[in-house]
Parts: sequence; C-alpha cells; structure tokens
Amino acid sequence: MGIGYWDLIGHWSLGIGHFIGNYKIVIKFMLDKLFSPRSVAVIGASRDKQKLGHQVLANILKYGYRGKVYPVNPAAGKILGLKCYRSALEIKGAVDLAVVAVPAAVVPQVLAECGQKKIPSAIVISAGFKEIGGAGAILEAEIKAIAKQYSINLLGPNCLGIMDVVSRLNASFADGMISPGGAAFFSQSGAVGTAMLDWSKQNNFGFSRFISLGNKADISENEILEFLAEDKNTKVILGYLEGFTDGRKFLAVCQKATALKPVIILKAGRTAAGKRAITSHTGALAGQNEVTAAALKQAGAIQVDSLNELFDYARLFASQPLIRGNRLAIVANAGGPSVMATDAVVESGLQLAKLSDSTLKKLKAGLPATAAIHNPVDLVGDARADRFELGLNAVLSDKAVDAALAILTPQTMTEVTKTAEVIVSLSRKYGKTVATSFIGGAKVEPGIKILTTGGVPNFLYPEAGVRAMGAMAGYQRARKLESQKVRMRVVDLKTWKVVGGLLNGGGEQVGWQTAEEILKIYKIPMVKSAVAADAGVAVKLAGKFKYPVVLKVAAKKLLHKTDAGGVLVGLKTAGEVETGFKKLNKIAKKFGGEVLIQPQILGGREIIMGVRRDPQFGPVVMFGLGGIYTEILKDVVFRVAPLDQAESLKMIQEIKAFKLLSGARGEKGVKLAALADMLCKLSELATDFPQIEEVTLNPVLATTKGCLAVDVRIITNYELRIKVKRQNLKVKEN
Amino acid sequence: MGIGYWDLIGHWSLGIGHFIGNYKIVIKFMLDKLFSPRSVAVIGASRDKQKLGHQVLANILKYGYRGKVYPVNPAAGKILGLKCYRSALEIKGAVDLAVVAVPAAVVPQVLAECGQKKIPSAIVISAGFKEIGGAGAILEAEIKAIAKQYSINLLGPNCLGIMDVVSRLNASFADGMISPGGAAFFSQSGAVGTAMLDWSKQNNFGFSRFISLGNKADISENEILEFLAEDKNTKVILGYLEGFTDGRKFLAVCQKATALKPVIILKAGRTAAGKRAITSHTGALAGQNEVTAAALKQAGAIQVDSLNELFDYARLFASQPLIRGNRLAIVANAGGPSVMATDAVVESGLQLAKLSDSTLKKLKAGLPATAAIHNPVDLVGDARADRFELGLNAVLSDKAVDAALAILTPQTMTEVTKTAEVIVSLSRKYGKTVATSFIGGAKVEPGIKILTTGGVPNFLYPEAGVRAMGAMAGYQRARKLESQKVRMRVVDLKTWKVVGGLLNGGGEQVGWQTAEEILKIYKIPMVKSAVAADAGVAVKLAGKFKYPVVLKVAAKKLLHKTDAGGVLVGLKTAGEVETGFKKLNKIAKKFGGEVLIQPQILGGREIIMGVRRDPQFGPVVMFGLGGIYTEILKDVVFRVAPLDQAESLKMIQEIKAFKLLSGARGEKGVKLAALADMLCKLSELATDFPQIEEVTLNPVLATTKGCLAVDVRIITNYELRIKVKRQNLKVKEN
Repeated sequence: MGIGYWDLIGHWSLGIGHFIGNYKIVIKFMLDKLFSPRSVAVIGASRDKQKLGHQVLANILKYGYRGKVYPVNPAAGKILGLKCYRSALEIKGAVDLAVVAVPAAVVPQVLAECGQKKIPSAIVISAGFKEIGGAGAILEAEIKAIAKQYSINLLGPNCLGIMDVVSRLNASFADGMISPGGAAFFSQSGAVGTAMLDWSKQNNFGFSRFISLGNKADISENEILEFLAEDKNTKVILGYLEGFTDGRKFLAVCQKATALKPVIILKAGRTAAGKRAITSHTGALAGQNEVTAAALKQAGAIQVDSLNELFDYARLFASQPLIRGNRLAIVANAGGPSVMATDAVVESGLQLAKLSDSTLKKLKAGLPATAAIHNPVDLVGDARADRFELGLNAVLSDKAVDAALAILTPQTMTEVTKTAEVIVSLSRKYGKTVATSFIGGAKVEPGIKILTTGGVPNFLYPEAGVRAMGAMAGYQRARKLESQKVRMRVVDLKTWKVVGGLLNGGGEQVGWQTAEEILKIYKIPMVKSAVAADAGVAVKLAGKFKYPVVLKVAAKKLLHKTDAGGVLVGLKTAGEVETGFKKLNKIAKKFGGEVLIQPQILGGREIIMGVRRDPQFGPVVMFGLGGIYTEILKDVVFRVAPLDQAESLKMIQEIKAFKLLSGARGEKGVKLAALADMLCKLSELATDFPQIEEVTLNPVLATTKGCLAVDVRIITNYELRIKVKRQNLKVKEN
Repeated sequence: MGIGYWDLIGHWSLGIGHFIGNYKIVIKFMLDKLFSPRSVAVIGASRDKQKLGHQVLANILKYGYRGKVYPVNPAAGKILGLKCYRSALEIKGAVDLAVVAVPAAVVPQVLAECGQKKIPSAIVISAGFKEIGGAGAILEAEIKAIAKQYSINLLGPNCLGIMDVVSRLNASFADGMISPGGAAFFSQSGAVGTAMLDWSKQNNFGFSRFISLGNKADISENEILEFLAEDKNTKVILGYLEGFTDGRKFLAVCQKATALKPVIILKAGRTAAGKRAITSHTGALAGQNEVTAAALKQAGAIQVDSLNELFDYARLFASQPLIRGNRLAIVANAGGPSVMATDAVVESGLQLAKLSDSTLKKLKAGLPATAAIHNPVDLVGDARADRFELGLNAVLSDKAVDAALAILTPQTMTEVTKTAEVIVSLSRKYGKTVATSFIGGAKVEPGIKILTTGGVPNFLYPEAGVRAMGAMAGYQRARKLESQKVRMRVVDLKTWKVVGGLLNGGGEQVGWQTAEEILKIYKIPMVKSAVAADAGVAVKLAGKFKYPVVLKVAAKKLLHKTDAGGVLVGLKTAGEVETGFKKLNKIAKKFGGEVLIQPQILGGREIIMGVRRDPQFGPVVMFGLGGIYTEILKDVVFRVAPLDQAESLKMIQEIKAFKLLSGARGEKGVKLAALADMLCKLSELATDFPQIEEVTLNPVLATTKGCLAVDVRIITNYELRIKVKRQNLKVKEN
C-alpha cells in the first residue's frame, strides 16, 4: 500500500498500544475514501452502453450517490448529461476515488495521472493483468509500483468494483444495487460475486458493503477485514477467498475481527493443494487444507466448505441475534422432519433444550392429548397457527431455551401465512435466535416470503437450519475461549547470534551435533548420543550407556535413516554392537556420515512433533502419536506458531487418541506438561529463525515422568530466509 | 398379509427357483389390485367437503381414473353425482380396492364387510391406531387380524393413501396429482409425503407412484419395494423410513431391487437410537445407526442423511441416464465455483476426466487464449451460449468422459436461456449424464426452468451436483461388485442338536468349557486352557504349558474379567503363578467360578470380533483391531450375518487401520485368510442359533501364520429365541 504498509506492521509488531491505535485509524482513514468518497472520477467513461466505462458511470449515477461525479475520456464531450474531462489532471475539484475502466495497457498512464492529481484511492476494473500471466503480470507489477509511488490505495485490477449502501454508491459494472442489510461480503472471484448478488435479490438478503477484490495487487482481504471489523454498519463479515495474500497477517487481523463480530470464510481450492509434492512426513500431512483449517480456527473464523453453507449461514447470522447458548427447542407439526432436525442437533454441537416444568405444563394445557410436549415439541399434523403460537411462546419464554426452530409441512389444516406472521412477531418479542423450516414448494412459498421479509430465515431442510445455528453457537464458544493471540517473539541477541551461526554453517540438513546443540539452547531435552569412530569405540560406549543400545547413521545427505536401513535398535550384546556397527558404517560411508550410538529408551509413548514453514502462514506446528497414528490414521493436529504453554496443551488434547496420553485402560498418563513445553519451545525455535524450513522430532518418547527426543532433523533453506518476511519477531539485546 | 406371508417366505428360503418365481408373481398380483384396481369403493364417502371421505372421493374422480367408483355411506343417497351404497356388501359388481375413511372405531366392522365382499385390497386412511398408543394399538391388532382372516392386503392405517400415474388414480386426501415421471416414492411419514408432493410441483419433478405407508399394520416397505423393483414405470425408488418392519427381509428384497434399479433411502432417527443402553463392547459400538448403514450398504441402497440429499439425488437419478463410469468433465464460465466443484470431485468418489488430445485441440481452436482447456474447462467470464456449446460438445464426445457438469454464473455477457437450451439439446444428443449449476437468483431462474423441463437437473450449488453424480457412480460400482447376497444357512441335524443342547444348558453367559466346545465344533481355533483347581495344579500346568502363562477367572456371572482384575498376564515363574492363583481364586470364589490357566501367546496383532443380534437385522458381525483402535478410535466394521469367506475378507479390508494387518513399515502382514475364515464361522454360529444374543472373541491374536482366539464370551437369551424368527436357516438331516 502506498503509505508504507510494512513500516506500519513493523511498529505494530512492537506491540505498543498507541501504535495499534494509530494503525487502525490509518486503515480506516484510507479505506473511507474508497467506500465513502466525496467525489468520484470514472476514467474511461463511455457513451457506448456496451462498455464497462458506461455501465460503471451509469451505476454511480443511478442509486442516489450524493458526491461529485467526473467522467474522464479524452474523446467525449458530455456523457449521461455530465461534462467529460480529457484527463484526471483536468478536473478542478479534489477527487477521492478514481474508478478505472480503460484497456490494460493504458492503466499505468491514467493511474500515474491520478497520482499526480493526488487521488488517494482507485478501483481498477480493467482486466488483462496477472490473470493472463506473462505480460499481464509485468503490467500488474508496474501499476503496483505506481500506486506505491503516489500513495494510492488500489483495489483490483480485474475486479467488479464495490457497492456501498451507506454512501449509496455502486462503483461497479454489476447490475442493480444491493439492498441494505448487516452483511459485508468480499470476494476474490467476480463470478462468485455476481452469483451472490443475484442470489441476494431473490432471497431478500441485504448487505452493508460488497467488495470485489480482483487480483489483490495492493488492497487485500487483510485491509478489507480490518476495515469491516470496525465498520458500524456491518454485523457479519462474509468472504470468498482462493488464496491468502499474507496468511500470518490474516490470522492477526481476523483474530481482532472475530472478537467483535462473526467472520465466515469460504476458501476454495482444497483438492488442488493436495497435489503438492510430498517430501517429508510433516510436509505430507500439513497440506494446505489442514493448515488453512487450523489457521482459520485459530483466527476464530467460521470456515464453510460450500456456497450452500455460506448462503445458509449468512442468512441466519445477518438476520437473527447471536445465539446465547447451545440449547435448541424444536416445535413442529410433523414427526419425521423433527426427527431429522434432532439428528442434526448433536452433530452440530447443539443440544436439545430440556424444557422447564412450567413450560411443559403450559404445553400440556394448550395442546391436544396426542401432541408430544417434550422437546422436540410435536404440535400434531392438524396444527393451525394458534397452536404454533402457543408452542413457540412456551418454549421461547423458557430460560432453558436459547433458540427455536419451527418446522412446518403443508398439511390439510395448516395455515401457512398466518403461522409465518405469528413466528415473525414472536421472534421480535423474545430476541432469541429463531429460524424456520417450512418444507415444500408452492404451498409454503407465501409463508417463506413473510418470514424472510420479517427477518426470520427459512431453511427448506431442517438440518440446514440446525447446522447454521450450530455454527453460531460454535462462534460464541470460540469467542469465550479466547484462543491465544499470535504472539510476538523476542529473541535475545546472544541466542540469535549463536543459533544463527550454527544454522548458517549447517547446510541443507543441519548436522547431528549442530542440531543437538540447537535443541540444547532451546531447552528441548534429547537422548544422549555419541559418535562411534570404530567398532571398538562402539562397544566401549555401549558398555558405558548400558544395554540395550541403538546404532544409527547420521549424515547430512541422508534424510530418511530408517528407510535406508540406517537404524538398529535393541542391540543387547557387544557382539550385536560390533556386527551392527560394521553394517551401518557402510551406509554411513556411502552418505558421507558417521555412526552414532544411543542408549535405548524403554517404554514410553511414541510421539511425533514437527514444525514446517508454510508458504502462506509461516511456521506451522504439528503434533501426533508416532507410527500408525500419524502415518495411517492421520491423527495429527496443526497450529500456526508460536504457541505458549497453554495453547500447546490444548493442541495436544485435540488428537483423537488423546486418551492414550492421558491414561487409558488403567494405564497412567504421560507427563503432558513436559510435552506441551517441548512443543512450545519447538514452535519458538522455528519462529525465531526464518531460515528454518522444517524441524522434525521423531520419535519423541513420552513417559509418566517427562519426554525425550530420540531423533531430530533440521532442514534450512536460505532462499526462504530471503523471501520470508520476519514474522512476529524482534531481536533484543539483553 | 392375508395369504400367508411367512409360509411363502418359508418356501422361498428353501432357495428353490420356481418358488421364488411364484412368490414374485404373487406379490405383483396382490399389489396390482392396490395400484391398478378396476374398481374402487370409498367407505366413508361424504358430502361434507371438510371430511377426508369427501376429499378422497373427489380426488379419485378428478384425475381421469377409468375404473368403477362406489361411494359407501349408510346415510347418503348420492355423492358427487354417484349412487351411494349403504355398505360394501350392497355393491353388485366386484370391487378391487376399498379406501376406508371412517372413524377408527368403525374400521373393524367395515373391514370385515370388505372381507365378506371379497375385496382383495384396502387403504385405511383413518387415524387413531398404534400412533396414539394403548387402545389404538389394540384396535390396530384387531384390523390386522381381520385383514389376515379375509386375505385383504391392507395399506395403513393412518396414511395419506396412494397416487398412481398409470391408472390415473389419486386414492388419497392430498391435494393435486403427481405429474408423470420415473421416480416412485414411499414414505413412512405423511408430513414428509405432503412436503415431497408440494416440493415436486414447484420443481417439476415427476413420479410413477406415490405411497404413504402409515402404520404398516400389514403392507410394509418390503412388499412395496418388491413390487416397485419389478414395476416398469419406475426408474428409481425413493423411500423415507423411520424404522424397518423386518430388517432381514428388507435386506434380501432390497438386494434384488438394487440389482435392477437404484434405491435411495432416507432413514431418520439416528440420534434417538444412540441412547440405547450400553451393555458390551460389541453392543456399544453396534448402535442402530452403524447397523442400519452397514445393512443399507450391503443391500446396495444409497443412504442419504437429509431431505436435501434425497431431493438432490432424486432429481438427478430420475431425469438423467445412469453414469457410465466416474470420470467427470466440468465446463464453466467462472473459476471460483469450478474450483469448488473440483474440490467435491474426489470427496465424492469421482475423478476429473483426463481429456483426450483431440478434445484439447478442439477446445484450443474454439476458445479464446485466456480460456483453460484442461478439465475443469474455463470458458472465461464473457462466454456466451456458443462457447458453452463448443465446450460441452467437445467434452461429451470424448470417450474419456462419463459425465459433464456445466457451471454458469450470470455475468455481463452471459446468455442464460440460450445456454440452457443448448445444454438440454446436448444432454439428449450424447446420452451421458449431464447436470448443471446455474448459480444465482432471478437472473438464472428462466434458464433453470428450461433445464428442468428439458430433463437436466440444476443444482444451485455445484458441489451438490457433484455429490449427486458421485452417488450415482457409487451405485454403479456397488452393482458391479455384486455384493454377497444374504445366504441360506443349512445346519446338519447333529450339530443342531449338540450345540443346541450345549447352549440350552448354558444359562445367560455360557460357561467357559461349553463355549470352548462350541467354538471347537465350529472350527474356530482357540488357545488351549485348563482349570487350575489349586495353586499346586496351577504351577504344574504352567510347567506343562511353558512360561510365560496367563491366569484368568472364568465365571458365568462375571461378564468383564479384566475390569474385575480377573486376568493376570506374563507370569514367568512358579512363584508368580502361585501368588497369582491365590489372588484370582478369591475373585473366582466371589463370582462362583474357577481359575483358568493358558499359555501366553507372544506377538501377534490384537483383534476383536463379535456378533450381536440386532432387533431389526438379526445377527450382525463386528470386526476391529483390539484396544485403542476399537475403544477410542471406533475403527470397526459391521455386516449382517452370515458372511462367506470372500465377504469376510472384504469386511476386514474396510477398517481404516487395515495396513496394520496387511503389513506396514516393513513388517509382514498377518494371515488374512485365517482371520476371514474365523469371522465367517463366527457369523455362521450366530445365524444357526437364534438363542445366541452375543458372541465376542476378544482378543483374537493374529500372526503371519494364523489366528487364535484368546478369550470368548457367549451370551444367550431365550426370550430372543421365542421372539426372533428363524432367519435364513434350515436344519437338514444328513
């Protein structure tokens, strides 16, 4: 961004309160000009109705925008009744926003003119940039540089534009205008954006703002998210993303946003990422999907997997108050759909509310004998609107109920519209979360219209309504848990120099002794080991270590010891050590390494932990049980580093087989605090040194008393050190 | 059913071809009178438009039914222009079907009159039976007996009735008439039925027949399924069920049906079943959901979890040809939704088709340079109908493509209706499975109408379309696999007598020696064991067995040995055996049992297998790895017994941790054939003896050489023997 984005981040990373404050004000100030400009220039305005430059201008004029509008086109005199300027420089008054719709090749020139005119924000609608590759990418780099040079906040290129209900501005080439509502939507895909707009009209869905991100040359989801978090007109933030511009920044920004309001993200591209080359266990497991899911969870965002869920959740979150707890009451005129909704309740993290005695009394008194008064309440098939009213009044006034779902199927006596009216009015009366499932087609449609207009979302399928409520309860739970914020790491200068030096000399795979030293500095306990120069030394060391012992090959060029036959365990005699040494020494020589000897640790649970630098989210920690649990059952958990002790412990508790660690079938559990400590330190090591690509401790043996790493692999990548920005890190002299 | 239903099953179970043939003809003949009656009597016909008896009569007359119609009502003269009869007995001509809509209390009487009049089939619409409990249940038993006495095939009571497009008969009190189509739908819930009817009208969805099952006093899903399987007008069978009338019969009937056409079942009530009391490992794991899912899979049926999926799948299956393989091509004017569809492809068991070179050439020649010609094909946002035509023509003519999904979002240049027309015509031209995802609202609606009318289902969300296609491919795969049919077991008389005798004397938990003997007869290998009468004997036996040994308490009253501290393993010396014996002897005395000694089997994988009598599906086999895998990871598989060797092997291969058995990380695999054999025999044992409630072998130790049961528990239940019908079983003298 124009005004020195990374400088700001630098200050912000210091963690000093007033800087954060200033930064926020800056973001808000910057994007205010974009969303609420006092004046707009349309560069490339055209008389030709087929041209985007015409459509954009017409849209700006059409929906009540009250600022000044300047069409710019070197060839035209007047367009749509407005005087046309030959260039932005010709405009007399100040311009807050330029909307650019000229051919790609001309964009650099007009953008520079905008800069000279000191226009602070621009939307580049024109296509023909990075999305077409080669020359387009070069052109995009060029406009990015121009934006930076002139401090222009640039949205796009290759985007639809924006719509804003507050300033009544449709600065896009999309038909129609959004109706007012509480949801802001940003989309990295124009097509998803237009689909969403079309869907919203049919479903009476309202927006505060609509933003098409396009290629994200300058403004990305991060700035938008930060702006929307503070935006009073926005109640819920919806986003469609195909990739993260800066995952770690996203995490920080999103954590702040979700503390204030729900953020629902649809991230496409799950499968494509699965194709990544598999180079290591940690790498293979930490696919982009898993890391994205972990990061979104850490950020407190609600991740949806489909447009379906996005639309469903959006309708509930935008129209209803946030759910107070997780206790749902179901009131229905049909048993079957009620059972289906009940099935979905537990799966969605909700529970069926246990109705109080007084509620049950009310229901018993008012409903026919064949009705079911316990939740789910069955009003019986011949229920008219009055019976729905009685049932919903009873459950919504119950303190043990946080939300209600009313299910209606069109039967002989059913009063569809009257029931809808009753539900709308009760939803307002109690202020609790209410949704409906009027199931069917033409018969229920008039009822659904009344509901939607009245702010009660209807779900054609009851399970979908329950799931949306479950997502709401999940958001509330996550907010209460106050997941750990991404922390700032402060490394002391001495460590920075010593470990940095060790890593620098390490090569691609850091040598064994160096790795041992680094772990020692980070207080990560590791089993002792020694180099066995020859068979005699090996036997002598074995005697010192006590049998059984382990022999293994350590060689920088050997990434997978076990696969190469380079590990021998359980050697019980001098003879076995001698034979073993000879065998391994051959392998060691082949790879230019040496033979190590270690005492064999008996008992203990096998653990694997690792940390890997993700291209989007930076260092990501992995934890799992060793062997089959990780390799076959994929029972592993991820988190963006660094973690503190508490978050490490939470992470460990998330594996499915956690009972194996905490003690199952009468066995004592392992010392979890020691494991959490090790995980936490591992996460700090990788955060502190951007040149680290991967650290794997496999296995770590955990016992009731503590834990010990048995094998270590550290991989560095100096390309990375140059490319990767220093993330949440500061070196301090102490 | 009137004509001796179980007698027929008896013959059928003999497995004699012509009996099966006859049985089929009988079912068809019986239900033909119901669906295509030459004449209908409406018992309880009324002049009062508010009464069901009026609505039913009006519906029968309204939609072109060509048979004779006789209103019956003792009080009326003429109704809707027809002469009214005082009772069924008064009618002169033959009557094929009686539709009964009189108060519940009067139903027995009018049904008896129908019987005397020799009316072969009846639909009882009246409510007030089992669904209201107590007196209603007694009344239902009464009408069931009357139906049996007079050989009446009875549908209901408490149902909506039926609709049939072939005989143009609406013998129900539901408004309107189904439009003709290839889907038959049966529903155990009237509300789900009416919702489906209402939905179908709005979505232009056609039916062959619609059946409301009601309380299933006589005709159940099984007879309906059998009839629909043979029905030429039905292309796909849809069913909504809340419970199975006879699960084992359902399995057999459904297997036959799914060999002919797809059967899609929505079974509600997953959560409620989860509440069952947990009495054993096998019992706890084999919840009703898991057993139902296993049985439906074994039956070749497609199980859906929600109305949403039911409606989605129904639309695709009813309108499009069955998919030929699993290779899908995606053609879209938008990148984002295309990525989302791609994400769903692998998850749905499909794969992205690899387009042939000639297809790629065609696409390259016809599409703009910015288009993506590899699958998913991106036509770019400004694609008009001609570009969709070119793209779809290219992929559908490719032999490497089995199905196509066309995705459209409404953008500036998009031709919604023209594109829809093109797709409809191409879908007909190639005869491959085609679906669309026109995403949006008002703008895409006219296109969706054209598509639906033209037999191409549209999915608002592309993932939903992909999932429906995936279900279709799954059905085709399952059909090709030809899953094992439920087999007939023939037990020889000697075994029947011997094992029967042993079980009879066994009590609730069969004693250890008896259980050992039974396993021996069924050739299930078990580790040797002996009773240690005192510590001296124990030490002597230990010497004979060789150390280490195992001591355990065997007592009929002790169901969970380990939990009671009744198992000691790894005893290595005479001293340990002596101390151990003393400890266990106390426990043995407490439970009135004795102490057993076994040699300890070293090495081997721990397996758990069991079989349990499910109230709906009879004996159900469970297989899993022991310990954590079963208890914590729930990595277990179920099948309805009996299994043959091949099916047992397939079942074993379905556990997630199968690699642990087949050999992982350089280890040799266990002898799978031996495991499969044991599982197969276990399944036979439980099938042969209905008095067996549960058999658990836990653990079984499997090695590279074979497998051996180490512990056994057999539980009998004589209540069960009386209640449970003999399922797929015949005793033969040999």
